[in-house]
Amino acid sequence: MNDEPELRRDPVTGRWALVAPERARRPIALSGHEPHGLTNGERTPCPFCAGQEHDTPNEVFAYRAPGTTPNGPGWQLRIVPNKFPAVRQPVPASRPDESGAGEMELFTSAPATGSAEVLIDCPEHVDNPTRLSDEQFGAVFRAYRERMAALAADPRLAHVAVFKNVGAEAGASLGHTHSQLIATPVVPALVRTEWDCAAAHHARTGRCVFCDIVERELADGRRVVARSAHFVAVTAFAPRFAYETWVLPVHHEARYEAITDAATQDLAVLLKRVLRALDVVQHTPAYNWFLHTSPLRAGAPPHYHWHLEILPRTARPAGLEWGFGCHITTAAPERAASELRAAEAEPERQG
Amino acid sequence: MNDEPELRRDPVTGRWALVAPERARRPIALSGHEPHGLTNGERTPCPFCAGQEHDTPNEVFAYRAPGTTPNGPGWQLRIVPNKFPAVRQPVPASRPDESGAGEMELFTSAPATGSAEVLIDCPEHVDNPTRLSDEQFGAVFRAYRERMAALAADPRLAHVAVFKNVGAEAGASLGHTHSQLIATPVVPALVRTEWDCAAAHHARTGRCVFCDIVERELADGRRVVARSAHFVAVTAFAPRFAYETWVLPVHHEARYEAITDAATQDLAVLLKRVLRALDVVQHTPAYNWFLHTSPLRAGAPPHYHWHLEILPRTARPAGLEWGFGCHITTAAPERAASELRAAEAEPERQG
Repeated sequence: MNDEPELRRDPVTGRWALVAPERARRPIALSGHEPHGLTNGERTPCPFCAGQEHDTPNEVFAYRAPGTTPNGPGWQLRIVPNKFPAVRQPVPASRPDESGAGEMELFTSAPATGSAEVLIDCPEHVDNPTRLSDEQFGAVFRAYRERMAALAADPRLAHVAVFKNVGAEAGASLGHTHSQLIATPVVPALVRTEWDCAAAHHARTGRCVFCDIVERELADGRRVVARSAHFVAVTAFAPRFAYETWVLPVHHEARYEAITDAATQDLAVLLKRVLRALDVVQHTPAYNWFLHTSPLRAGAPPHYHWHLEILPRTARPAGLEWGFGCHITTAAPERAASELRAAEAEPERQG
Repeated sequence: MNDEPELRRDPVTGRWALVAPERARRPIALSGHEPHGLTNGERTPCPFCAGQEHDTPNEVFAYRAPGTTPNGPGWQLRIVPNKFPAVRQPVPASRPDESGAGEMELFTSAPATGSAEVLIDCPEHVDNPTRLSDEQFGAVFRAYRERMAALAADPRLAHVAVFKNVGAEAGASLGHTHSQLIATPVVPALVRTEWDCAAAHHARTGRCVFCDIVERELADGRRVVARSAHFVAVTAFAPRFAYETWVLPVHHEARYEAITDAATQDLAVLLKRVLRALDVVQHTPAYNWFLHTSPLRAGAPPHYHWHLEILPRTARPAGLEWGFGCHITTAAPERAASELRAAEAEPERQG
């Protein structure tokens, strides 16, 4: 291959990987291992701050004050193409056919096409998302919905990965709080696995496994961190990292795109409570959150249920995790939930 | 739960995780982010060095000079129980029945029983495995075989994870070169996935997918790093980390335990060549290696083929990797192989 990014399929497990040599050139403003890292230093202005719109590609979506001009000031939230994308426009005319995996070549690759976008949460240089106002936080979740719906209109795309990296240890290369949306012509391995397993559970029991989890967790209570009108936050029963927390809609909802404005606001307020508690209990850890929802245009099946997973970097995975997929954590999820509940109940500290 | 370690099954995907609160107490001698980290400092003698045998639990296996006493000096290699185990003796009378996954409780857990052992490669304080002599390196692979065969005799165990962490970034907590053997009553997620996918490939094609890979890689040559009488080392076609390298037996071999003494020595010499090249090209990176082989007492099926995977920590996985299982790397595997071949051909540098 030359330096064009490629999607490659692992010949044994079918897991898709991205090989993107150009990404090696992206600037890394977050150095070392500071937990969040204020990087609006002397040497370079932050490209995500208000007034630096010329440092990013042209916006594809924004919430702005009436009468302001795209790519100028006056915005509350912007989505711009990633300057160092893992995937690239244009999307090809057809996408890899994953239905007949058995018929694929042993070594299957495809141009890494799709879109890679950055959602800048706010114009101020804020590094910790819990410092966003409830209104700003809610806008992030409405923008996820709008942009996913727009991308779903392109039949050549199969999935949009929506996630946030907070802190250098969690992979953030800039401190200014932001999310990423990466749309690909293939469905990523973990979404495929979750989808298939949930379908198998439904075939066996006639029920959605996530609805079962919600019902059992609410009845049991030991792993419940917080509850709102539409959502419940629970520590994961079999976590990959200590304090791993899932936020699920209480009622069955297969597709994130169907979320109402009221529910996005409810989600934002709940998530802020959970993240603030995590900051207190784990001393502002680095973390990721990611949205797991149905693949694009997969309908609203009875077996799948969208949810948000929060993965704090509370340990350093080693051979057992990377080599065998078996994670070791050192805090029981029940204890983690109890600590988070206690922190969550405290009055907010001055930041 | 109290502080007893537990195995827990993720209710959605079936992935087993270990919750082991006691592990939080293990000493971490490797601090910060030094690549390998000589830790035989002033404050505490290294518990893995000759003369410190009283610092480890009693050995369960050793290569020693004739006439020397267990747990005293005179050894070339020792295997001892992990002082801070993720799993514990005794193994229960029965193990979780994974055949009827559909019948399992939504939240399934089991005592985290099994064995966790540390293989100390050599009595001297060597931190980089490439500094071992060929004889010492070969002994490590013979000891893997002996110990796996011994553990296979216990019908309550289902799998032995054999792996090595080199460097703090790869999860090593002590610098003195060592491996780990963790035997569990369940089969870890990645081994299960590989096994199932390989079985599906065999059912479709009548062939072992790893034999197919070996044949195609040898014919193509672009990803071949090194070759020996019994083995070939290739960079992974769809890597998780740049420079990820797999070492496979050239001829079909389902079970590692069947390896001959001659083949262990051939493997050791080949692996040293590959690791030395990786040290040159990536400046002594942290890495893991892990052995993927058939579960215990699974026979020698035609669809599975043991191999060793080397995972250098050449990047920091973020939301796309942890959240979606889609890895981004920035070096093409063909270029990585070419660089490793070139480094491998150079005369050995003075360390």
